[in-house]
Amino acid sequence: MAKIANRYFKVDPWAIIEEGFEPSYGRVAESVFALANEYMGVRGYFEEGYSGERQIGCYFNGLYEETEVKHPFVYKGFVHKSRDMCHTVDWLFTRIMLDGELLDIARSKIKDFFRILDLKNGTLVREYIWETQDGKQLKMTFERFLSMITPNLGFQSISILPVNFSGTIDIISGLDFAGDQASERKWVCLKKENREDMVAILGKTKRSGLHVFSSFVLESDNITESRVIEDEKFIGLSVRLKLNENETATLVKKVVNYAEKKPLTPSEAVWKQGVEIAQKYLKTDYDNELQIHTSYWHNVWQNLDITIEGDPENQQGIRYCIYQLHQTYHGSDPTLNIGAKGLTGEAYGGKTYWDTEAYCLQFYLFNNPKAARNLLEYRYNVLPQAIERARELDCEGACYPISSIDGEEGCGAWQHASLQIHVSGSIAYGIWHYDKICGDKDFLYNKGIEMLIQICRFYASRVQQDPHTGKYGFYGVMGVDEFHMMVNNNCFLNYLVKKSMEFTLSVIEEMKVNAPDLLSEAIVKTGLKSNEPETWRRISENMIILQDKNTGLFEQHDGYFRLPHIDIHSIPVTDFPLYNSWSYDRIYRTDMIKQPDVLMMLFLYNQDFPYDVKKVNYEYYEPRCIHESSLSPSIHSILAAEIGKEDEAYEFFRFATRLDLDDYNRNTCEGLHITSIAAAWMNIVYGFGGLRSDGEYLKLSPSIPKHWKSYSFRILYKNSILSVTVTKDNAIFKVQGDSLIDVVIYEKLYQISQSDGEIIVSR
Amino acid sequence: MAKIANRYFKVDPWAIIEEGFEPSYGRVAESVFALANEYMGVRGYFEEGYSGERQIGCYFNGLYEETEVKHPFVYKGFVHKSRDMCHTVDWLFTRIMLDGELLDIARSKIKDFFRILDLKNGTLVREYIWETQDGKQLKMTFERFLSMITPNLGFQSISILPVNFSGTIDIISGLDFAGDQASERKWVCLKKENREDMVAILGKTKRSGLHVFSSFVLESDNITESRVIEDEKFIGLSVRLKLNENETATLVKKVVNYAEKKPLTPSEAVWKQGVEIAQKYLKTDYDNELQIHTSYWHNVWQNLDITIEGDPENQQGIRYCIYQLHQTYHGSDPTLNIGAKGLTGEAYGGKTYWDTEAYCLQFYLFNNPKAARNLLEYRYNVLPQAIERARELDCEGACYPISSIDGEEGCGAWQHASLQIHVSGSIAYGIWHYDKICGDKDFLYNKGIEMLIQICRFYASRVQQDPHTGKYGFYGVMGVDEFHMMVNNNCFLNYLVKKSMEFTLSVIEEMKVNAPDLLSEAIVKTGLKSNEPETWRRISENMIILQDKNTGLFEQHDGYFRLPHIDIHSIPVTDFPLYNSWSYDRIYRTDMIKQPDVLMMLFLYNQDFPYDVKKVNYEYYEPRCIHESSLSPSIHSILAAEIGKEDEAYEFFRFATRLDLDDYNRNTCEGLHITSIAAAWMNIVYGFGGLRSDGEYLKLSPSIPKHWKSYSFRILYKNSILSVTVTKDNAIFKVQGDSLIDVVIYEKLYQISQSDGEIIVSR
Repeated sequence: MAKIANRYFKVDPWAIIEEGFEPSYGRVAESVFALANEYMGVRGYFEEGYSGERQIGCYFNGLYEETEVKHPFVYKGFVHKSRDMCHTVDWLFTRIMLDGELLDIARSKIKDFFRILDLKNGTLVREYIWETQDGKQLKMTFERFLSMITPNLGFQSISILPVNFSGTIDIISGLDFAGDQASERKWVCLKKENREDMVAILGKTKRSGLHVFSSFVLESDNITESRVIEDEKFIGLSVRLKLNENETATLVKKVVNYAEKKPLTPSEAVWKQGVEIAQKYLKTDYDNELQIHTSYWHNVWQNLDITIEGDPENQQGIRYCIYQLHQTYHGSDPTLNIGAKGLTGEAYGGKTYWDTEAYCLQFYLFNNPKAARNLLEYRYNVLPQAIERARELDCEGACYPISSIDGEEGCGAWQHASLQIHVSGSIAYGIWHYDKICGDKDFLYNKGIEMLIQICRFYASRVQQDPHTGKYGFYGVMGVDEFHMMVNNNCFLNYLVKKSMEFTLSVIEEMKVNAPDLLSEAIVKTGLKSNEPETWRRISENMIILQDKNTGLFEQHDGYFRLPHIDIHSIPVTDFPLYNSWSYDRIYRTDMIKQPDVLMMLFLYNQDFPYDVKKVNYEYYEPRCIHESSLSPSIHSILAAEIGKEDEAYEFFRFATRLDLDDYNRNTCEGLHITSIAAAWMNIVYGFGGLRSDGEYLKLSPSIPKHWKSYSFRILYKNSILSVTVTKDNAIFKVQGDSLIDVVIYEKLYQISQSDGEIIVSR
Repeated sequence: MAKIANRYFKVDPWAIIEEGFEPSYGRVAESVFALANEYMGVRGYFEEGYSGERQIGCYFNGLYEETEVKHPFVYKGFVHKSRDMCHTVDWLFTRIMLDGELLDIARSKIKDFFRILDLKNGTLVREYIWETQDGKQLKMTFERFLSMITPNLGFQSISILPVNFSGTIDIISGLDFAGDQASERKWVCLKKENREDMVAILGKTKRSGLHVFSSFVLESDNITESRVIEDEKFIGLSVRLKLNENETATLVKKVVNYAEKKPLTPSEAVWKQGVEIAQKYLKTDYDNELQIHTSYWHNVWQNLDITIEGDPENQQGIRYCIYQLHQTYHGSDPTLNIGAKGLTGEAYGGKTYWDTEAYCLQFYLFNNPKAARNLLEYRYNVLPQAIERARELDCEGACYPISSIDGEEGCGAWQHASLQIHVSGSIAYGIWHYDKICGDKDFLYNKGIEMLIQICRFYASRVQQDPHTGKYGFYGVMGVDEFHMMVNNNCFLNYLVKKSMEFTLSVIEEMKVNAPDLLSEAIVKTGLKSNEPETWRRISENMIILQDKNTGLFEQHDGYFRLPHIDIHSIPVTDFPLYNSWSYDRIYRTDMIKQPDVLMMLFLYNQDFPYDVKKVNYEYYEPRCIHESSLSPSIHSILAAEIGKEDEAYEFFRFATRLDLDDYNRNTCEGLHITSIAAAWMNIVYGFGGLRSDGEYLKLSPSIPKHWKSYSFRILYKNSILSVTVTKDNAIFKVQGDSLIDVVIYEKLYQISQSDGEIIVSR
C-alpha cells in the first residue's frame, strides 16, 4: 500500500478548513468542498468567476448526456452508448466589478483567503479581502447551501464589506448553460425569461433530450439599479449595489432548480412545471431555510455521530465521511442512486456500481432505513432494463448492469459489461440484508420477491455444468477482482448465487404462509414456472465452491493456485496504477489481485465461516492484493481486526477516512470517492466496533486501536439508537428508544432497553 | 459443417466459365474473376461501367490507407491505427457510347453474355452482344491480363464487332481515382498530364501519404478522333473509332502502374520514377507480352499441375487454387506478403496473418522455393516493427503481429493483438521448415538466425513459471482456437515455443561449426547475452505440455477438459456464424472450438507424435470443432486421411477446393479465401498424397478417395520435380531433374533419380 497523504486542509473536529488559497490544489478543493442534497450537487468552484484551472460542476442526480461508444469490432452484447452525468446550469453564476475591474482570484489582489465547510451546519463559507488597483479594500464573504429538506432549493449569499471607501459595486448574477466549452456543447437553451416573479431558463441536452429548468430571485437592501442580461445560453441580472464604508451589503440569491429526466417530456410541460415549483419555493426566506437545513444536520450529529478521542485527523475524517454520505443520499427519491463519485465530479459518469449494495447499503441500514429502501427501490425501478440486458446477453431473467446511470448497461468495455455478472447477486444480497436488519416485509413481498425471481432466473440461464461431476458454476466471468478476466468458477460469485437462490427459495416458502396472495401476484408478474424453484434448489445445492479441504483455503477461481506468483512488493511504486503503466494483458497473468474477492465473500457472509478459515484466507490473499481499488483496504482492515491483527487493521484503516481530504490517490480532483467513504464508516463500525449483521443476532465485539483513547458510534436499529462507546478497558452500550434490542456482545447475548441505562462490558 | 454449395459457374477442367449474367451473383463473380500478379490485383468488375451493385477494386500489394481505431477505454499495448489495403486507381476505366447511348450491362439490352477465366493462359475474357435502342448490334469482347513477368504492366483489349451496321463508336478510356465514394475520399490527385508518350496521373493517400502513379497508351487502327478528358481525380482520352459492318475493331490499352509505399517519398520523385518506368514498358507489344505471360502459365501447369480423374468439380477447383496461389504470390518482391484475401477484395484489409507460415508456406516450399524465401524475407524486413511491438507489450525480442500490412500490429481488437502470441513461433516454424526442405543456409545464417534469436528472446521475456513445479508456460493467451480467450498453457503454443527454442539452439551450434563469423555477426547485431541460450534451453526442457499420460490426450489449455460440454450439432444452423448471432461472451464458455489447435500441433509437428496419439486426439477434438475458420476443414481432412478415416477425410475435403467457386461461406463477394486455397493444395498433397515434410526424410503415403479414378501431383524438391500418380491400385513415382531424391514411401525408404523412370508401388 504505497499511499502517501498530501495534507492541505487544517485538522478540525467539525470543519474542513482552507487557510490561504493554493491554485495547484484548486480542483482537489473543488471536490472536497462540494455540496449536495441527493437531488443535486455543486462542486466548490468560485462562483464569481476564476480564470485559473478549475472545473465547474452543477449536477443533478441521474441527469445525463449520451455519447456514442466506439469499438474496433462490434459483437452482440456490446454497449453502444454511454450516458454520463454532466455539468448542467451554473446557477451560482456571479461576476463582480468595481470601477470596471473584474474580481478574479487568479488575477486580483487577494489576501486572508479562508474557506470552511461547516459539517455541523452543512454550509460552505468563503472569505477574503479584495484590494482593487486603486487600493480599495473589500471583505468578501460567500455562503452557499443546498437544502436538505427541499431538494430543488439552492442558496447563495454574498456579503460585501467596503473597508476603506463608499461607492457602488456591480454584480451580475445569472443562470449559465455555457459554463465551459465541453458542457456548453451538450446543451441547447430552449427558453429564457425575465418574469416579474423570477428569472428563469430552460435547457435541454442535445442527444439524450433531458431538461433542466432553473430560476432565481435576488434580494438585497442595497440594489440601486437592475437590468437583464442575456446571451444564447445565459440569462441574468446586472445589479448595482450601493456600498457604505464599513457597512456590510448582502446580496441573496434564492434558486429553484428542476431536472426532468424522462427523455420524451415536452419542453413546454417542463417549463410550466418548473415555473410552478419555482413559484412555490422562491417565496421562501433565506434565514428560515438555513435554519431548517441546519436543524437537519444537528439531528444527524445528535443521533448518528462517531467520536474518536485521541485522533483528531480521523475524527475529522470520519465526520467528513458521514457528512458526505448523508448529503449524497438520504432517501428522498427512489428513482435515484449513488454514483461512484456522488455528485462531486464527472469521473465514472455519475454511474452506480455494485458498490451501492456491497459498500454503501450497510451505512444506510444502520443510519437511514428509508434511504436503504430507496436504494433497493431504485433497482426495482430499473428491473425492466436489467431484463432487457439479460436478453442482450442471450440469458433470461434480470442481469443488472456493472455501471449505469439510468438502469441500462453503460460500461463500454465489454470485458466488464459482459463478464462481471455479480451485480445481480449483490442486489439479492442487499435485499436479504435489508430484510434481515429492517424487516420490511412490505418491500420484500411486493417488490423484492419479483427482483429475486428474475435474478435467480438470470443465473439459472447463465450457469453451466462441469462435464464430469455435473456440478454447477459460472464460466467466462470476471470476478470482483478485476485482475483476472475470463475465469471459471469464481468462488465468491458461485457462493453469492448459491446464497441468493437459497434466500429466494426461503422467501417463497415464507410467502406461501404469510402472503400467499402477494406470492401469486409475483408468480403471475414474473411468469414463474413451477419447475424453476426446483431448478434453483438443485443448482444451489450443487454449486461448485472451490475450497482446499485440508487448508480451508478457498481458490479464487479454477486454476488460481497454479498461477505464476509475483511478489507485489517487487513492483516499483512508480508503476502504480498498473493500468497506466503496464501492458494491459500483463496485468492478468499472475496471482496478484486488485481488490478483495474471496475476502469479500468472507466479509459479506462473515458468519458462515469459522475463524480459522477467515484467518487462513486472509493470510493467503492479503499479500497478493495491491488495493488498486479504493474500496479494498477497508475490507482488509475489518477482517484484520477480526482475526486479531490489530496493527495491520489500523494500517489499512489509516487512510480510509481521509482518502479525499489528504488526496491519497491523487485523483480527488475528479471527485470524491463516495463509495469508499461508506467503506470508511464500515471500517470503524464493522472493523473496530466488530459489528456483524449477517447472522441471527446483531453482534458487536469492539476493539480499540492503540492510538485512540476512546471512540463511540451509534446505530439506528429497530427504531432505536444503540450507542456504543469503547474505551481502553470497557465497551459501553446504551439504547435510546422503545425497542428491546437483542445483541451478542463478545459472543454473549444481551437484551438491552432504554431502561437498562449503560451496559458496561469489560474488554 | 453445415456448409452448402452455391453452384453458379460451369464446371470445366481448365477454366472458370460464366454463361449468362446474374446480377445477384455479381460481386461474387468479381472476386472469382479477380486477376493478380503479386504486385497488383484487380477484381473482375465491368470496366465499361455498371450501374448495378458492384465493388471496383484495383489494389497494390502492401499499399494501404490508415484509419484511426477507437476504443471505449485505452490501455497500454492497444492499437490506435488500422492500415488497410484500399482501392487505388481504376486503370481499366472505360465508357462506351453509341449514338449517345451509354453501354451499361445493368440497363442496356445484352445477350449471349459469356465470361471465361482461362487458367491455362492466365487471361480473363468477357463477351456479349449489345443491342442499342435503334437495334444496332455489337459483339463486345473484353480481354485483360496482368503480366506475370513485369509486375507494373496491365493490359486491356476491347474488340467490337458491329453485326448489322457501320458507323462510329465513342470510347472514353482513362485512369480514375474517384471510382467510388469510399475510396475517392482517401485520395488526393497531385498531378495528371497528357504527354506525347503517355497519359499519366499521380495520386496520394490522404493520411498514410503513399503514392500511386498510373499511365497508359491506347492503340487502335480505327481511331479517327482523340481528345483529353480531365476531372479532379481523373484523366483519360475520348476516342472515336470507325466501325465497318462485320469487321472487328480493337482498342488496346497498355498500362504501367507504379506504387510507392514509403510514406515520406517526395511526390515529384514518384512522378519522375513513374514516368521512367512507363517510358521503359509502354513501348511493349500487346501480343508479345501476352505470349510471354501465357508461357509463364504453361510452365506452371507443365511442372506443377494436379490432375484428378473422375472428379471434374475438384479438378477444376484445385486448378483454380493453384492458379490463385501463383498469381497472388510467386516471389518477385521480398517486401510483399500474402493477405488473407490476397489482392481480390478488401476484407481483412490486405493484411498478413499467421496463415502465411502455417498454411501457405508449404505450397511455396514445394512449388516455388524463391517465393518461400521471399515470404520469410518479408518477416525479416519487418523485424524492427516486431521488436517495437514486443516493447509495447512490456516484452523483449520480437513479437510479430497477428495482423499487419506493413509490419506494425494492425489488429484493433486487443484480445487478439495482445493475446495471440503464436505468430512469432509460427515464423520460427517457417524458418525451420524452409531450412529442412530447401536447405538455404545463406538465408538461415544471415537473416534467419537473427529472427530466431529475437523470437526466442521474446518468448523468454513472456514465459512464466508454475509456482509449484517451476515449469514454464504462457499465461493469459489466446491460442489458434479463438473460442478460448485468456487461457493458460495453451498446449500448441507451449510446444511451438519449445520447438522454436530447440531449433534456435541447434542453429547456433551448427553455426559455431559452419559459420562462426556469421554467428558472431548475429550475436553483435542482436546483442545476444551469453546466458540467453542457456535460459532458452532451461525453458524448452521444462515447458509445460499438458497431456494425459493414460489416454495420450493433449489438453488444449489448463482446465479445458473441465469446461462445460456443448453438443455442437445441437446448435441451429441459422446461428452460424456465431460471432453474428451469439452474445460475445457466450462463445467462450464451453469446450467448443473454432478451429484446430491441438490438431494443428499434430499436423505441423506430425512426426513427433505416434499414430495412436494422433488418433485419440483427432477423435476427441474433431466433434468439438465448428470450423468457423475456412482454414479448419483441410487440417481435419489431412489428419482423418492419416488415421484411416477415409470418408471423413473426403467429407472435410469436399468443399476445400471449391470454397470460393461455390461460395460455401457466402462471403466470397468480399474476396477470395486465398490462405484457405493454400490449405486446399495441402489437403490433396499432405492429405490424400500423405506427404510429410517435418521429419528426417520426405514421406509419402498416398491414398485415394473412393470417388476418384486416379490423381497426380508434382512437387519441386531439391531442384527436381517429383511427380506422383495415384491409382486405385498403385502409386507411381517419377523424378525429372538431376537430383537423387530420398523419399519414404509407405514407411519404406527409396532413393529415386530420373534414370529410374517410373517407380510403381502397389497400394
